[in-house]
Amino acid sequence: MRNNAESIKNITVVGTGVIGQGWIARFLSQGYQVTAFDPAPGAEEKVHAALKKVWPVLEKKGLGEGASLDNLVFEKDIAKAVADADFIQENAPEREDVKRKLLAEIDGLSRQDAIISSSTSGIMPSTLQKDCAHPERVIVSHPFNPVYLIPLVEVVGGEKTDQAVVERARDLFEAAQMKPLIVRHEIDGHIGDRLMEAIWREALHIVNDGIATTGEVDASIVYGPGLRWALMGPFLTLHLAGGEQGMRHMLEQFGPALKLPWTKLVAPELTKDLSDKVITGCEEQTEGQDIAALEQRRDEFLIKLTDLLEEYWPAANLNGRL
Amino acid sequence: MRNNAESIKNITVVGTGVIGQGWIARFLSQGYQVTAFDPAPGAEEKVHAALKKVWPVLEKKGLGEGASLDNLVFEKDIAKAVADADFIQENAPEREDVKRKLLAEIDGLSRQDAIISSSTSGIMPSTLQKDCAHPERVIVSHPFNPVYLIPLVEVVGGEKTDQAVVERARDLFEAAQMKPLIVRHEIDGHIGDRLMEAIWREALHIVNDGIATTGEVDASIVYGPGLRWALMGPFLTLHLAGGEQGMRHMLEQFGPALKLPWTKLVAPELTKDLSDKVITGCEEQTEGQDIAALEQRRDEFLIKLTDLLEEYWPAANLNGRL
Repeated sequence: MRNNAESIKNITVVGTGVIGQGWIARFLSQGYQVTAFDPAPGAEEKVHAALKKVWPVLEKKGLGEGASLDNLVFEKDIAKAVADADFIQENAPEREDVKRKLLAEIDGLSRQDAIISSSTSGIMPSTLQKDCAHPERVIVSHPFNPVYLIPLVEVVGGEKTDQAVVERARDLFEAAQMKPLIVRHEIDGHIGDRLMEAIWREALHIVNDGIATTGEVDASIVYGPGLRWALMGPFLTLHLAGGEQGMRHMLEQFGPALKLPWTKLVAPELTKDLSDKVITGCEEQTEGQDIAALEQRRDEFLIKLTDLLEEYWPAANLNGRL
Repeated sequence: MRNNAESIKNITVVGTGVIGQGWIARFLSQGYQVTAFDPAPGAEEKVHAALKKVWPVLEKKGLGEGASLDNLVFEKDIAKAVADADFIQENAPEREDVKRKLLAEIDGLSRQDAIISSSTSGIMPSTLQKDCAHPERVIVSHPFNPVYLIPLVEVVGGEKTDQAVVERARDLFEAAQMKPLIVRHEIDGHIGDRLMEAIWREALHIVNDGIATTGEVDASIVYGPGLRWALMGPFLTLHLAGGEQGMRHMLEQFGPALKLPWTKLVAPELTKDLSDKVITGCEEQTEGQDIAALEQRRDEFLIKLTDLLEEYWPAANLNGRL
């Protein structure tokens, strides 16, 4: 599995919030040496607490060769944290100024052949690499929460990125048991978040207009389209719904609906009233439930579901190496 | 389970395309007496062929008491087909004029206490019931393909619908092992299809702009958000991604993104070029695969996934009876 990702052994995670913690757990569970850096007070303790919680889940899923919690070093000096890194994953707050400054700092402190990768959910790599002296090794690798279980990572290069760097990152993620999706052209929000944003806007309208509660919207996905999307995504779902004629039939049948005003075209104003509805809706859905217990249930479910996907998804031919 | 749905024993399915066949299989597998009607040549043979294909899947999933393929009668006269029905499910082509005319005809031929239900994916029940002499028993019950496995059914009453009829339909669907979602206010496209339409439009843009192929878009869902949506839907997914602060934190963090132009606000022109891309993309994804074999794989997956949902989804409190 390691192919030319063999050259990547030391990984540094900069920023250890929920996403950074997820990356740490993912890489540790696959046998990597991980160095963590975060200037926030108490960050190290939070990382250890998070790892303690998820490690049994990862053991159950199956650890990679040499995987150990002992392979983590928390470093208080960013220069020391990135000095020996082969691969650096940045997870700072989602602000362009913050990320650009931090990436330029890392660029100046790290080995020139180290890959610098940002977890940004929305900002394009061409923007992020602007202040770097060596922008050719700067990419976006956008993961999905929980990073230690969800296989998808969107890998995006910017105008100045060397394509070989994108390929090395892909090899690394494959070695880490992930499913790297190389985004062909950079775009705000990459791919997954644009799709999530589309459904999110429409779901907010439905709640805002009193058509359904958040729990009912969730049920409308969980017991319906979500069952198919989990296996096939939006396109193959429709292809299989079209009978022998597949997508051809579906476009003839549902193409005209694209012209109907079925979806609201502008995002709703996030008023206090709408915020309250959405928040209390979710809180009612989980009333009396401990968040950690729900997370554990989610994790166990995801393991079983991803096992199912491994068994069934390869039924369809996948482009390239996905 | 049967509660006041006990009174519904004879079900008539009018229109036996893919959705009608799905209803027939669903009701037969749960032990109901089913009468089918479709004026198209060869309709009866197609129904029998479809049932032969899915029955082993349904046996594996588990049949209801008294379930038998022998409980199906194909009737060539619509008057005879609906005369004794307790519940009539209409699945004509998705055209308002066709459905209104057909529902008015059924209204005149059926017992006054029979429920008349339409599978329409987009038209509101207030519109469909306009030409009926007894509109109070007309509802929409919108299922999802494959109807014999996907539990969701959206139940919607119109302006003139008696709420007791909606309740009786809910009881019936629960007895038929479905998850009826009562839509609080009628709306074009109900709920599930609006959400699917939102993601569908954005996915078409992504393909149209050359950002990703259909297979890559599908993978971006299957290996990422789809894994979470299948269990939690769009709202609970974000609630659990927000840490201890849940949705409150997520709205603070991602609320501003609603103002960003992340999603295209107008549906793309469905040009020949776009149609071709979408169709060939799906065909390449399934190249060398038999559609029936893919359907069977999908069905086996859905059974295992819905079993998983039964085990894990009740972790969250569900509003009402969902």
